Amino acid sequence: MEPSARILSSTQFPSLFPLPNLNRSNVFPVWPKKPKATKSMRLHCSKMYVPGFGEASPESKAARNLHNFFTYVAVRIVTAQLESYNPEAYQELMEFLDRHSLNDGDKFLASLMRESSRHKSLALRILEVRSAYCKNDFEWDNLKRLAFKMVSESNTRLMREYVTETSPSDTEK
Amino acid sequence: MEPSARILSSTQFPSLFPLPNLNRSNVFPVWPKKPKATKSMRLHCSKMYVPGFGEASPESKAARNLHNFFTYVAVRIVTAQLESYNPEAYQELMEFLDRHSLNDGDKFLASLMRESSRHKSLALRILEVRSAYCKNDFEWDNLKRLAFKMVSESNTRLMREYVTETSPSDTEK
Repeated sequence: MEPSARILSSTQFPSLFPLPNLNRSNVFPVWPKKPKATKSMRLHCSKMYVPGFGEASPESKAARNLHNFFTYVAVRIVTAQLESYNPEAYQELMEFLDRHSLNDGDKFLASLMRESSRHKSLALRILEVRSAYCKNDFEWDNLKRLAFKMVSESNTRLMREYVTETSPSDTEK
Repeated sequence: MEPSARILSSTQFPSLFPLPNLNRSNVFPVWPKKPKATKSMRLHCSKMYVPGFGEASPESKAARNLHNFFTYVAVRIVTAQLESYNPEAYQELMEFLDRHSLNDGDKFLASLMRESSRHKSLALRILEVRSAYCKNDFEWDNLKRLAFKMVSESNTRLMREYVTETSPSDTEK
């Protein structure tokens, strides 16, 4: 594998939603606590009980992973900007990316800051871009709309495919 | 590795944000197209140019990954419900989970539907729960708030840690 291929292979990228395993050995120590939670939740809200997130909520898990995603996006933005007007810094950042994983965005940035003073400037810029991207550019409403659409369309598609596959067809396929 | 450990190891879970590599061989074939896009985007909006997402937007990438996350959550919800009142179905679902990855939620559900008629009922229920969870239960505003908070706090923490580490301290550490 060439060194550059290490950076962000699609399987490697964010350890996104690094959730606890759903397997039994892992599940049992957590779920016996459930009845209490279920009872109190049923009294106070109509939401479905989601087990297995420990102290964190599903929302905070999702936010943690979006956080790493925003770091990735910020790195791409800065890299693209540097490529145009500062080829030297671009090279340095790309070399650093060859050697460090972006799976954990904060860890990546902490290492980048400590590499050299030039790298530190790049890291500060990525911090700034990450914050601006998350707060101004990322289209939250669009995310929600797309996720709704994806769930509806996937559900329809999965059911349609199943029915098509299991029904005897007129044309004998 | 015991079979059950295969289901949802933290590295295995969602192939979340399965993004294109950031390495150079991959970057160059995409980025030469950039100047045109940059120019037109600069004319029409003030957002930063995010390269490397091809035809998809960062929002649709994030939605795709939330989609898999919602499937994971729906599976957890249904499993927890079954555990209480239908131990047999619970066993069947857990056994199926031992054998199939949840990385790709839709693929998982398509396989579940085709396993047996009982599994099909479970799959239909997971589809329903996934849709209800995404549309009613998941707290989108909370996600946004948490992500904002995480970015601000991480940025502050990273800078504070760097400064603390590199400044000569009064107490000689």
